[in-house]
Amino acid sequence: MDTTALREDAPVDSARRQKTRARLLDAAFEIFAEHGVHAASVEMITEAAGFTRGAFYSNFSSKNELFFALMEREKSLRIEQLNEGVAQFLAPAVGGGAALGDDAVVEIITKVLELQSDDRRWWLVQSEFQLLAMRDPEISAGFLEYQDGFVRELTTIVVEALTSASLRFTIDAEEAVRVIAELCANAEARALLAGDERKLSERLSASVPAIMLALTERL
Amino acid sequence: MDTTALREDAPVDSARRQKTRARLLDAAFEIFAEHGVHAASVEMITEAAGFTRGAFYSNFSSKNELFFALMEREKSLRIEQLNEGVAQFLAPAVGGGAALGDDAVVEIITKVLELQSDDRRWWLVQSEFQLLAMRDPEISAGFLEYQDGFVRELTTIVVEALTSASLRFTIDAEEAVRVIAELCANAEARALLAGDERKLSERLSASVPAIMLALTERL
Repeated sequence: MDTTALREDAPVDSARRQKTRARLLDAAFEIFAEHGVHAASVEMITEAAGFTRGAFYSNFSSKNELFFALMEREKSLRIEQLNEGVAQFLAPAVGGGAALGDDAVVEIITKVLELQSDDRRWWLVQSEFQLLAMRDPEISAGFLEYQDGFVRELTTIVVEALTSASLRFTIDAEEAVRVIAELCANAEARALLAGDERKLSERLSASVPAIMLALTERL
Repeated sequence: MDTTALREDAPVDSARRQKTRARLLDAAFEIFAEHGVHAASVEMITEAAGFTRGAFYSNFSSKNELFFALMEREKSLRIEQLNEGVAQFLAPAVGGGAALGDDAVVEIITKVLELQSDDRRWWLVQSEFQLLAMRDPEISAGFLEYQDGFVRELTTIVVEALTSASLRFTIDAEEAVRVIAELCANAEARALLAGDERKLSERLSASVPAIMLALTERL
């Protein structure tokens, strides 16, 4: 066995593998959102992605494993978008050291929201996942870990952003971030139900900054 | 046809009918929570309630209609419990006209929460209903109406209670009540996932009063 050849192939293989995984995750996202996680089968996902069952199982041991991988990918995307928003809109505003007025805070939060993926499928799939996890003890611990990890990551970013704007939460920071995240999720659900096609940032620009200001005080 | 006899029978009939409806709703609550609304059939519900399909269809035209009736019943129960809590704990505390300190507000909110039904099935079934409604345009408008009606009823009670305690929300009252209701629902979901057997009031006595105080100001 020529191990040199194997090593040389590895990066190509790995890139192709990443591409296969990404296509399977994209397909699963669509299928889960359209049919629900329960009704979605491995066959439906592989067919939509244009792969065989073999390709699926060489990447994921089960539908649950793929589900967790999808949640992690989407979570990372949203964390990235939030970091970008803070760097792009908050950092320059507080760079000069001047304190921000309430109006400036509202404007910055609205701009950061505008960068967030406006993806109702994400909300649908997360709700499904939560319901599944509540009925299936095998995934409930993993789901809780995922969700708490998400809130912790969000909290780190938000607290750092608030500090740089000379603000701090008046209640437990994780609790405050949970409340705001739930507000966003709930707004997505209502938009879906009402057929409200406005963008996330338009729908949330009245409530999220108001809640954020109500839950914070000047340092 | 002897209409006098019919009229005399009516109250008995009506009482029996109410009992049948109540048993069907109880059974549906159990079945929906255990198996999910999608997997639950009219047969499963009637069998659990000890009735025939005929009894079902003489009370409800469809599973969806029964679902709405169940949500309405459970909503009314919770509104009643909230009203009772306010009457029992807040009214005497503000009767003398003295302003309440933050500690007293926290204590009253905790006591009111203790009166609320500690029913995780309720949260599960509501989540299911919301997911169904998001996929089924036939029930989405009805669900939205139900949900908005619930928030409006809660808001009326909460605003009246706050006013009597010389407090008011610093943000839109319905938005504030939505945030607090979501916080409760989310806490239920986490308790289910974590196998946390503590009572609703114990789990929420740290967060709900803190959020309520953060979102209000003295009149």
